[in-house]
Amino acid sequence: MTDPLDTTSDRRPGGRTARVRAQVLDAVRAELAEGGHEGLTMEGVAARAGVHRATVYRRWRDVGGLLVDVIDAAGEIDWRPPDTGSLRGDLTALNREIQESLVVQPSFALALMAASFHSEQAARAQTRLWADRYAQCEILVERATERGELPLPHTDARSLLIAATAPLYHQLVLLRADPDPQLPERAAEAAVLAAGAGAFSVRREESA
Amino acid sequence: MTDPLDTTSDRRPGGRTARVRAQVLDAVRAELAEGGHEGLTMEGVAARAGVHRATVYRRWRDVGGLLVDVIDAAGEIDWRPPDTGSLRGDLTALNREIQESLVVQPSFALALMAASFHSEQAARAQTRLWADRYAQCEILVERATERGELPLPHTDARSLLIAATAPLYHQLVLLRADPDPQLPERAAEAAVLAAGAGAFSVRREESA
Repeated sequence: MTDPLDTTSDRRPGGRTARVRAQVLDAVRAELAEGGHEGLTMEGVAARAGVHRATVYRRWRDVGGLLVDVIDAAGEIDWRPPDTGSLRGDLTALNREIQESLVVQPSFALALMAASFHSEQAARAQTRLWADRYAQCEILVERATERGELPLPHTDARSLLIAATAPLYHQLVLLRADPDPQLPERAAEAAVLAAGAGAFSVRREESA
Repeated sequence: MTDPLDTTSDRRPGGRTARVRAQVLDAVRAELAEGGHEGLTMEGVAARAGVHRATVYRRWRDVGGLLVDVIDAAGEIDWRPPDTGSLRGDLTALNREIQESLVVQPSFALALMAASFHSEQAARAQTRLWADRYAQCEILVERATERGELPLPHTDARSLLIAATAPLYHQLVLLRADPDPQLPERAAEAAVLAAGAGAFSVRREESA
């Protein structure tokens, strides 16, 4: 869909192509949030974006194409993991961000998860986005190791991050529990305590 | 849908009503597993079950009614939480069961989760089922406390159970990771270590 050899003005950042994409993706987010992915149609998106249907069909082909691009766009924003000075603080801040994204009404994050159950394309795009975000967050664990907050020789960052964040998703997405304002901190704390006890140490036989 | 005053033979366990329900719910499970909830129709279920469409409409009304009943039926089976003699063993066994239910192809558990994103009725039924299962599992924590495996005065059973099981759902349902044969035990171990360090103690200010 993007051609690196195409240097016409339309393809330059801020050019007409970028503007059309921004309008269309804004419309996708609004339609998703309002009606879920089941209500998402090429026509509805084109109408809301004020863009010709033919343009939307040519560039995104189908609803799956729109979903993939809106997920990819979420990965392009300049997100930075928290940096509070302690692992517990960082994971709590991360969990608060996650809780907020799942609790806000309507939740774009929830709409994307629902969509990914029904579109293989959307599911793959979302898996890439998650992988990127968890990779970005590994710095939290590196910094904590440098500060001496974690047992040596090495803590598996991804396992620790999953343990810290999974209870938020489980409670809010799968169990549909009411949001618990204490949960971001409690889940962060549990993961830090488990890590301190060697739960995510890479040589677990020796460190546990 | 069930009338406690109806004492005709049709309503007795094992009677015609029970047989029809079993046939219809078997058909719902098969259709769900094959085509997901999007492929679920009253007609398809009636045909597969070999039951008159009118019967299915009268008793279950719509696809939402079928989903609710198949989830309620899952709650009626005589499931027992594991009892291996240690908290780590029990949680590992529980996680293995969860992983198996999510990895099996086709997965009825996954199909239900997908359905619950799109049917408010199914979502409520599933929330009830989860609540029952977590309540049943609290015995694992009670037994561990009696064996002296957990810090006193009191560990919050539900928080511990969520921490132990959430990484399975997160990895397999949301992140769509390949199943990791080590994960059931590692997630169980991390929760036990966190619990031992006081992460789920009810008076956390004092015990953490």
